[in-house]
Amino acid sequence: MGKVRVASFSLSLDGFGAGPRQDLQNPLGVRGLELHAWFQKTEVFKNMHDQSGGTKGIDNDFAVRSFENVGAFVLGRNMFGPVRGPWKDDSWKGWWGPNPPYHTPVFVLTHHARAPLQMEGGTTFYFVTDGIDSALKQAKEAANGKDVRIGAGVSVIRQYLSTGQVDEIHFAMSPVLMGEGEHLFSGINLHELGFAPVKTVVGESATHVLIKKR
Amino acid sequence: MGKVRVASFSLSLDGFGAGPRQDLQNPLGVRGLELHAWFQKTEVFKNMHDQSGGTKGIDNDFAVRSFENVGAFVLGRNMFGPVRGPWKDDSWKGWWGPNPPYHTPVFVLTHHARAPLQMEGGTTFYFVTDGIDSALKQAKEAANGKDVRIGAGVSVIRQYLSTGQVDEIHFAMSPVLMGEGEHLFSGINLHELGFAPVKTVVGESATHVLIKKR
Repeated sequence: MGKVRVASFSLSLDGFGAGPRQDLQNPLGVRGLELHAWFQKTEVFKNMHDQSGGTKGIDNDFAVRSFENVGAFVLGRNMFGPVRGPWKDDSWKGWWGPNPPYHTPVFVLTHHARAPLQMEGGTTFYFVTDGIDSALKQAKEAANGKDVRIGAGVSVIRQYLSTGQVDEIHFAMSPVLMGEGEHLFSGINLHELGFAPVKTVVGESATHVLIKKR
Repeated sequence: MGKVRVASFSLSLDGFGAGPRQDLQNPLGVRGLELHAWFQKTEVFKNMHDQSGGTKGIDNDFAVRSFENVGAFVLGRNMFGPVRGPWKDDSWKGWWGPNPPYHTPVFVLTHHARAPLQMEGGTTFYFVTDGIDSALKQAKEAANGKDVRIGAGVSVIRQYLSTGQVDEIHFAMSPVLMGEGEHLFSGINLHELGFAPVKTVVGESATHVLIKKR
């Protein structure tokens, strides 16, 4: 039986997973990109974007692990794209080009139905309109014994955390003070939900923290 | 001119500086002591309590630095002792015995006047009843060019932070999920207050983060 994981999730030192005032120009909120600077330097990220180079150290190792043994992803709609409201047409196919970096079924939470979208490389986007429980159930079935990774954003992860459906969290604490934005843990009692810290490792550009269900 | 510093301040991974439900049995709140486990293992802490031994690694180095070049301390009253309300008499002289580990003037914030209390080793406790600004002003004068360290607790530090009076913060992030309690940064915008991260170092039992005014 696979686990339900949050992995390589970027946080500021003060606990924010996204900046304030998200809009189309700032899909991660103002200064939100700074949270992900560690990831953008890695070989994993460069490969995902058909670039060569990138770092191969601790940060990259954690990024590699965040994709290992993942059989399905769940994403919030804003992580899939900038379109809001009903889909006007099927022209938006994600941020990632014809061959997205998932290579598994990906369940996108949305209020607006759309036909599944098969991409190159094994990625198929399924659009789930009946809620987080249904999305996770479908993802677990699709993962077929492998892990389900809850991708992003903050509100999706908060919903799965607060309903006790996450087994393991790896967050990457970036050397950034966000000050405002979307807080990942505020009002969520991780201790009461059964989580305990497993390890902390300082990487080249972020500090990696692993917490698991006790 | 000295700096105003918060140093060796213990935080949980989820940002709490004290546990919930503080009382005389749990002066740091339920499970609050877990936040300080890293410090209690150090040589600095052992020496403060007339014990030998203790670790001499990274955690201890940060603990040492938190006392270096400090010319005066400011403490909240609960950090000084468990007495609440008016002082019944002068019998309570702090948690630390006849020779407290400060060796400087210490300004204790309280609503209840009391004569200064001179201890061995250079520590004198002054009880300040006219607010945080007065306490800091007196501490700066007493520090005579050295740093003023804002000791604890969470509410005192939050007051000095949110009024922009702190120059530098070293917090020690313990591998603990508190879940509830007193959050150090909640509602305080450290970015807007001008702080930026300087470095992160993993110690033996805590991760040390240094942030300073830009």
